[in-house]
Amino acid sequence: MKIIGVIGGSTCSEEIYNIAYEVGRHIAKRGNILICGGLGGVMEAACKGAKSEKGLTIGILPTNDKNSKNPYVDIPIVTGMGEARNIIIVKSSDGIIAIDGGYGTLSELAFCGVLNIPVVLIKSWDIGIGIKEDNPEKAVDLIIKLIEKRI
Amino acid sequence: MKIIGVIGGSTCSEEIYNIAYEVGRHIAKRGNILICGGLGGVMEAACKGAKSEKGLTIGILPTNDKNSKNPYVDIPIVTGMGEARNIIIVKSSDGIIAIDGGYGTLSELAFCGVLNIPVVLIKSWDIGIGIKEDNPEKAVDLIIKLIEKRI
Amino acid sequence: MKIIGVIGGSTCSEEIYNIAYEVGRHIAKRGNILICGGLGGVMEAACKGAKSEKGLTIGILPTNDKNSKNPYVDIPIVTGMGEARNIIIVKSSDGIIAIDGGYGTLSELAFCGVLNIPVVLIKSWDIGIGIKEDNPEKAVDLIIKLIEKRI
Amino acid sequence: MKIIGVIGGSTCSEEIYNIAYEVGRHIAKRGNILICGGLGGVMEAACKGAKSEKGLTIGILPTNDKNSKNPYVDIPIVTGMGEARNIIIVKSSDGIIAIDGGYGTLSELAFCGVLNIPVVLIKSWDIGIGIKEDNPEKAVDLIIKLIEKRI
Repeated sequence: MKIIGVIGGSTCSEEIYNIAYEVGRHIAKRGNILICGGLGGVMEAACKGAKSEKGLTIGILPTNDKNSKNPYVDIPIVTGMGEARNIIIVKSSDGIIAIDGGYGTLSELAFCGVLNIPVVLIKSWDIGIGIKEDNPEKAVDLIIKLIEKRI
Repeated sequence: MKIIGVIGGSTCSEEIYNIAYEVGRHIAKRGNILICGGLGGVMEAACKGAKSEKGLTIGILPTNDKNSKNPYVDIPIVTGMGEARNIIIVKSSDGIIAIDGGYGTLSELAFCGVLNIPVVLIKSWDIGIGIKEDNPEKAVDLIIKLIEKRI
Repeated sequence: MKIIGVIGGSTCSEEIYNIAYEVGRHIAKRGNILICGGLGGVMEAACKGAKSEKGLTIGILPTNDKNSKNPYVDIPIVTGMGEARNIIIVKSSDGIIAIDGGYGTLSELAFCGVLNIPVVLIKSWDIGIGIKEDNPEKAVDLIIKLIEKRI
Repeated sequence: MKIIGVIGGSTCSEEIYNIAYEVGRHIAKRGNILICGGLGGVMEAACKGAKSEKGLTIGILPTNDKNSKNPYVDIPIVTGMGEARNIIIVKSSDGIIAIDGGYGTLSELAFCGVLNIPVVLIKSWDIGIGIKEDNPEKAVDLIIKLIEKRI
């Protein structure tokens, strides 16, 4: 059992939402825990996918209000620290799947670079780290392999 | 299902350890999630008790190393923020049971005062908040009642 | 030159405001830098006193908005971390003068206990640390002496 | 008087060190305050340059130890939060000059993107924000202009 982070925007296109859903679904199907920023968009889609397979989902919220979480987060961690919470998501993940995403996602990828955390990229930023894999199921298989190789 | 925080020292006497174990056990027995600082002493005892009832345990770690968690934490949240993580434990809890404890525990109780979080005190600091109840089972029943009254 | 923290409520009585003003004034008069939480009440009074002696004032703000600072803060440090910023004030201070204050102030005093930071108390919490001294000028002399003894 | 952030690696080449020194020098010469991460490399060089013009320098330290600051930091802010302190540098800056830098610097640039902070880039990351200007003096003039336009 691993803790796999999914990062991406709090709003996204339908195409990206569907990809994130499948990523979350396969994370849970393989018996892993999903961690994310707890909000909408990619985070919501991934949590929804994980819950479709009865997985466990954790949301590291930037706000002071646990009700700001999306409905598919089981365990809201309330930081009240704004974007300073981004690094907690990264540090708590055995590996990260980045899906699309803006500057907030980029900050998280940069922290993966600082901390040498395994990363798989789906239509996301190219900053010299991570492996690209657009297929959600293969992306999940790949991050699990990368985490195991590291341990 | 509620998220109940247990706070107290990272080292403690055998008497306090046993009390914390019973608190953790009853939190899980009633179907709730246990959150704590993830380290030894009271935190370890409470997690151990929760696991004896197959409960779920979360540790908000001050370090950068998930291996600093006690063996009974299921989900380590790695903050790398030192004592700045104390407020995350408080903000993420629906209610708090404080057991004994030093200045770190006092900082957490103070944040309960700031944020108006329900508190039950077992041999802990008296700062004008919380209700004292030395019996572990009754303490758990009491914090659940206080949380429900608040909602 | 030392960095001296002044902690206390963001609202306060006129009596406490006047004490905090004198504390800030004497901190600056003796050539030291004042650090505080940057908001109103005791923090504002202390900064105003320090500026009356052309001292330098630093405010560690909980908000995302530097305009939330009181008008006597020279250097606003914007954390956006809410009460999690309290520990930054403590860690950045060579010594602390606590004046009155509620649970936020208590959390800071508790961190002084954790970190073994010198403390002088003016009508503030008694948690087993610090030395009481109600006279503002003597309180400043005392904290300077405690800091020097420590170094 | 503005607070200008300088970001870049804690180690760097001599060429980059000299550029950062000149950037710090011109920030101070124009009467502004320099804020940075407080460590070595680009941060040290910029602080050293600022002190050559009797400027004021602030270091937002990741450690718990104020002695980890470089010798040219006047005011060490001790966070003990590791890389979570990066966003405090960004939020506290009216504008940022990025010089070279690795993934830590990239995380800070990403936060500039999130928060819409003015940025000038000297041999640094291209992530779709900021204006490139390799001449240190012109870079300082440019960031001041960008800040003023924003206000």
